[in-house]
Amino acid sequence: MQKESHRRIHQLERIAICGLGLIGGSVLKALRAAGYTGHVTAFDIDPAVAQQVCAEGFANEVALSADRLFLEHDLVILCQPVGVVVQYLLEQPAQIAAGRAIGIDVASVKGPVAQALRAGGAAVQARFVPCHPIAGKASHGWAAAQADLLDGKLCILTPEPGTPQPALDLALEFWSLLGARTGFMAAQEHDAVYAAVSHMPQLLTYAYLHGLAAREHTREWLAYRGTGFKSFTRLGSSDARLWADIATHNAASLIEEIDSVSASLALFRQRLAQGQVSELAEDFASARALHAGSETAG
Amino acid sequence: MQKESHRRIHQLERIAICGLGLIGGSVLKALRAAGYTGHVTAFDIDPAVAQQVCAEGFANEVALSADRLFLEHDLVILCQPVGVVVQYLLEQPAQIAAGRAIGIDVASVKGPVAQALRAGGAAVQARFVPCHPIAGKASHGWAAAQADLLDGKLCILTPEPGTPQPALDLALEFWSLLGARTGFMAAQEHDAVYAAVSHMPQLLTYAYLHGLAAREHTREWLAYRGTGFKSFTRLGSSDARLWADIATHNAASLIEEIDSVSASLALFRQRLAQGQVSELAEDFASARALHAGSETAG
Repeated sequence: MQKESHRRIHQLERIAICGLGLIGGSVLKALRAAGYTGHVTAFDIDPAVAQQVCAEGFANEVALSADRLFLEHDLVILCQPVGVVVQYLLEQPAQIAAGRAIGIDVASVKGPVAQALRAGGAAVQARFVPCHPIAGKASHGWAAAQADLLDGKLCILTPEPGTPQPALDLALEFWSLLGARTGFMAAQEHDAVYAAVSHMPQLLTYAYLHGLAAREHTREWLAYRGTGFKSFTRLGSSDARLWADIATHNAASLIEEIDSVSASLALFRQRLAQGQVSELAEDFASARALHAGSETAG
Repeated sequence: MQKESHRRIHQLERIAICGLGLIGGSVLKALRAAGYTGHVTAFDIDPAVAQQVCAEGFANEVALSADRLFLEHDLVILCQPVGVVVQYLLEQPAQIAAGRAIGIDVASVKGPVAQALRAGGAAVQARFVPCHPIAGKASHGWAAAQADLLDGKLCILTPEPGTPQPALDLALEFWSLLGARTGFMAAQEHDAVYAAVSHMPQLLTYAYLHGLAAREHTREWLAYRGTGFKSFTRLGSSDARLWADIATHNAASLIEEIDSVSASLALFRQRLAQGQVSELAEDFASARALHAGSETAG
């Protein structure tokens, strides 16, 4: 039953994976763990990483360039940062349109991917299904990648109106083989939602730490932090360049979120300056109620 | 050895505890677990809670008023919210000055406690040692209290220049008996430090959730939250009135922290609006570096 429904993936002769970091590496490890025995080409900006992936037996071949991947494979999985994916789509429309591969990506922002596909024209759009598997952990890189990272996780697909059904089916089958659940959203809605529930917690963590870092004494003050500080700043270990890339590609939605939080902070500041304790308690209670709802949501 | 060093506490005949919530309850449970067999009087704004504490054998007597506690006990432990502690100190200087008890509290803000003591005069100051044990958990109330909550935790004492050594020694011995480490800070420095490392994470969590709560759709969006949202908003379940009380009593320091984070947010917003990805990456990296330092600090 499982095998039957994933037959199309197992029948793909050649798959290319670009970017063998945490997500790309986990995708590849999960693909092999699911029994895929076909040819895998590994491409990474650091060729040594791709070599390592081959040496460990997960890939068969290292690609030194991504310029012919769509011509020579059946499925191309782009697992690089969103900025790299967008640039690739913008620079390679001829290759993608002429190739036999279906392409998917894993970027956390989908609007700029959709825009790049539209810029490439109908032939490029027909060959690419934008995807975002919601998975991650504090550590990075191929060594941190694990076959079960996507297990039970949600993967959101943001197909364009012109995406052909067979391409969509292949993408759905792929994520299902890796153990992920799938769902659909429009790219713009996806970016607004993830700005609110994911990118803004990251940005606020950085803003809090950035504010502390800019001031005298605060480094010494960290000795007094408690468990609240630790959970609140857990995202502080995230990769700075990766998140600058995500944030700038989701700038419009993130600016809305910044304005929303800034308005709440300004309100709290006013309550404090005026000693409005019961009004502040009401504001906090509305925040607490949303949190209580989030504990049971979805 | 242990017994010898805590002999003064065990020799106290009568101890009163006001406020049998998480901290007050844990203090009492720890005191009994440490072998204190003297008389304990329980006072709580909800007499049923004090009755329950007696019924469970942790206290010997319920006080229906706190008006004579300093006259009739050797040690009075105020475990109510900071606003209640401040009001009590301001309203009861005659009782405190005339009493035989040493008083301690557990409030998260120490400046207003120091001010109230100063307002009461030298005789009140001489009888009270402001304390702040750094302990807490997500659940509240007597039922959540646990004897080991303070075990190994830091308790900060903010004595005034006029605090007599015997009173200070008694307070130190008390926290040591309960398993806590102790340290000293000036009240004003304490409040600045805890605004930065504790109160601001709580306020920012509320601000983030308050911003979401005010807008359409965001409740539905919570279905898409991931592990980052969960750790970032863990403090969202904290008691809203308790934190409004803490925040308004530490308003000056918290306003400084709000201004610091708001400046960082405004900078990030500008970076996003202008597409300054490498500058934003540098800002994020400075935040990340402070976080990496916090992992090893203290």
